[in-house]
Amino acid sequence: MLAGLAARMRERGRDVVVTREPGGTALGERLRDVFTAPDLAIDPLAEALIVSAARAQHVSEVIEPALAAGRSVLCDRFAAATLAYQGYGRGVPQETLRGLIALATRGRYPDLTLLVDVSVDVSRSRVRARAVATGEAQDRLERESAAFHERVRDGYLDLARQDTRIVTLDGTLEPEALCDAAWQAVVAQCALPT
Amino acid sequence: MLAGLAARMRERGRDVVVTREPGGTALGERLRDVFTAPDLAIDPLAEALIVSAARAQHVSEVIEPALAAGRSVLCDRFAAATLAYQGYGRGVPQETLRGLIALATRGRYPDLTLLVDVSVDVSRSRVRARAVATGEAQDRLERESAAFHERVRDGYLDLARQDTRIVTLDGTLEPEALCDAAWQAVVAQCALPT
Repeated sequence: MLAGLAARMRERGRDVVVTREPGGTALGERLRDVFTAPDLAIDPLAEALIVSAARAQHVSEVIEPALAAGRSVLCDRFAAATLAYQGYGRGVPQETLRGLIALATRGRYPDLTLLVDVSVDVSRSRVRARAVATGEAQDRLERESAAFHERVRDGYLDLARQDTRIVTLDGTLEPEALCDAAWQAVVAQCALPT
Repeated sequence: MLAGLAARMRERGRDVVVTREPGGTALGERLRDVFTAPDLAIDPLAEALIVSAARAQHVSEVIEPALAAGRSVLCDRFAAATLAYQGYGRGVPQETLRGLIALATRGRYPDLTLLVDVSVDVSRSRVRARAVATGEAQDRLERESAAFHERVRDGYLDLARQDTRIVTLDGTLEPEALCDAAWQAVVAQCALPT
């Protein structure tokens, strides 16, 4: 979906950077490998600190320079993912997480967060299908229980109710329709010319 | 030195755990590999967050259970290293670092910190000699400039002046004499029987 959204923005002359978290830098991708390793036991607070470390690097190395150069940044997961996964999912206090997010981002918050929502059943069957198609094992987060993923989804929906900068999209739409919906949200929220 | 100190404590009937940071757990050792990789560019704040992640895991998985079982914990580097390296060395504000330390340790502070002090010249020649002896390349921190290591050393000495729980030992002593000095500090500070 992000690639399709980036294509639409570029067609309209925007200079777009597509990136992801954890990741987006050499350090961040190394931390992502640690974070997703299926064999590692990771304490919830350590998990929050690892994603924050990747974010601090990402903001200073990629996001701030891109914004300073007038580019738009599309990032696959950002601050809301920390609140949903490590907060609602793992039970780290929201206040602790908001402090870490403010620290790692230097207070910079996205103009718009798109929440592509599907039921946990749909999500898990997509993850399984992808694992079969690619031959890759499910990662540490993907292997979590349905109960964990329900808490994360409920958390995301809760965050979207509290914050108008989070827009929920129907993740069961066909890719082209989902991309249209994402584009409409960007136009509405970021005052871009259609 | 820690091994010798642990041996003396065990001779007197103490149950001792010897560990290190970053490290001491499977996650921590993976993070240590990332942290020390000579090829990685790491933002100062990201560096502080990585060592904090390793510490959060270490405290919850190793240190707290050991203390709860009545064991003594000897750790090669801990909170003071974060203040010295990421604070005095890299310039991350002490207040930010003290917040991260309190978070990762859940407020648990060592009874005693031993600062084994040598000049930067002596330290660097020892590091070089070890690299030659082991055939291993110097790590990311070891490769830092003499100016960086001077700031770290001055920072450690500054911390020791502010905090009576940090005891400075002369790192040019012979190993046996250094171990004697460490043992005396432990006896004095931790009220252990000689």
